[in-house]
Amino acid sequence: MYYNDAFVRPRYEETDQMGVVYHGNYLTYFEVGRSEYFRSLGYSYRKLEEEGIIFPVINASCNYILPARYDDELAIRTRIIDLKGARLELFYEVVRKDNGEEVILATGKTQHAFVNKELKPVRLRRANPTFWNLLESHFETLKEN
Amino acid sequence: MYYNDAFVRPRYEETDQMGVVYHGNYLTYFEVGRSEYFRSLGYSYRKLEEEGIIFPVINASCNYILPARYDDELAIRTRIIDLKGARLELFYEVVRKDNGEEVILATGKTQHAFVNKELKPVRLRRANPTFWNLLESHFETLKEN
Amino acid sequence: MYYNDAFVRPRYEETDQMGVVYHGNYLTYFEVGRSEYFRSLGYSYRKLEEEGIIFPVINASCNYILPARYDDELAIRTRIIDLKGARLELFYEVVRKDNGEEVILATGKTQHAFVNKELKPVRLRRANPTFWNLLESHFETLKEN
Amino acid sequence: MYYNDAFVRPRYEETDQMGVVYHGNYLTYFEVGRSEYFRSLGYSYRKLEEEGIIFPVINASCNYILPARYDDELAIRTRIIDLKGARLELFYEVVRKDNGEEVILATGKTQHAFVNKELKPVRLRRANPTFWNLLESHFETLKEN
Repeated sequence: MYYNDAFVRPRYEETDQMGVVYHGNYLTYFEVGRSEYFRSLGYSYRKLEEEGIIFPVINASCNYILPARYDDELAIRTRIIDLKGARLELFYEVVRKDNGEEVILATGKTQHAFVNKELKPVRLRRANPTFWNLLESHFETLKEN
Repeated sequence: MYYNDAFVRPRYEETDQMGVVYHGNYLTYFEVGRSEYFRSLGYSYRKLEEEGIIFPVINASCNYILPARYDDELAIRTRIIDLKGARLELFYEVVRKDNGEEVILATGKTQHAFVNKELKPVRLRRANPTFWNLLESHFETLKEN
Repeated sequence: MYYNDAFVRPRYEETDQMGVVYHGNYLTYFEVGRSEYFRSLGYSYRKLEEEGIIFPVINASCNYILPARYDDELAIRTRIIDLKGARLELFYEVVRKDNGEEVILATGKTQHAFVNKELKPVRLRRANPTFWNLLESHFETLKEN
Repeated sequence: MYYNDAFVRPRYEETDQMGVVYHGNYLTYFEVGRSEYFRSLGYSYRKLEEEGIIFPVINASCNYILPARYDDELAIRTRIIDLKGARLELFYEVVRKDNGEEVILATGKTQHAFVNKELKPVRLRRANPTFWNLLESHFETLKEN
């Protein structure tokens, strides 16, 4: 199964007085995972926005299994789990490597709409056919594996 | 139906370059709602922690309907939807008042475990009977209405 | 001496594993103080931006005296200390009330340029004479006291 | 002149509605620079804390020259500019590389006290001689160059 690994090291700012990473910051980690995922497919999210397509989050969820801590070495694993004309759904794992063994700290999902700069819905296939084809062929490959 | 309203005004820091409040910040708004909710029941979360009980989030989700913007006047509405010996589930609405009419911008849920300072699970009924009784009788009232 | 008090209650998200408010968040508290200060003068920063004037920070500093903690009741006190055609300087105090006595936790300054939406410098006196007059007459009153 | 470069790519969460990185986040970038700086000297800040020494910020300042933007490739350059028995002062540059040329976006300073877990001041030389010697000999080398 294809995954893209984005590296994140929790910052002191991201911890809270419980001594662990504040739960809300995982949504930012998912954002880092998503951003590096698109880059690994050959198209940066920055470029998408410059070309007028924005992917706001319409639903997000996170399941917290074990706490991440300051200065941990984390991998954020991202992959597409659904792609429609106007929507995209992604799945994430936050993974820590302990002595070579992988420990899953959290999993989550985000759903995104494709909108233009006025935040109006667009069909990605028409609005940016190059990126649409990249996503679609990548998603086909994922489904075959 | 009982709800507690906590007031939040989005800060510039909480916006992003889409011109709206960054989606991850809604989990912080839920935290504000939760904190004021407990206070309205007569027991601050700060006091709970000082007495050794922590409520880490084990699951969180948010459904984004309309964007919140810088300097909006928002109410964060919170109520219990489930209470078990070792767990609590809360529901939230983020509401903006437009000319007297209420517009729901987002809804969400958080699930919490009751743990001690070593992050080990505890039964709230035993660990803090006063707060348990407050929550339970409040939850009973909610279910009757 | 005139000061405007903005109320802030540190959120769990704003603490770090030292058990206190993360130092970087004081710049956000200053932003809250500034925003409420302008509102108290009769002109919201949101409206200023809608009319095309932005006040980016060109210099910021903070002196940390005592830590702020989760759920403290803080006042952010703000006042103008310098006003020029293209620049504004503000001074802040972060104050906690302990049994009626005021304890200063931190002080700071921010310098702002007046720019338009393309981030090009403008003269506030011309770009927004109404707000300029408000600021100037308020600053004159401050200097007299 | 010795500098350690820490790599930072601004996240969407770190931008604001001005379309640039929110000014307060530079203090977090300085934290990343500091953390990687200590690591490059052979001693992680995490380990220091585990051994009971904390370095709270007692003063911070930042001078903003040009805005950083979402997804930029930034280097955070850090070096010691003062070291005393109970205090440390660091200097930072936030640098973006544009077609091979380096553009300084911001500079800043942080002053730190050495304290124990109860936030009481300690002499680093006694509290952690190994790290003290590392810092001192590194600072001597800096001064010679």
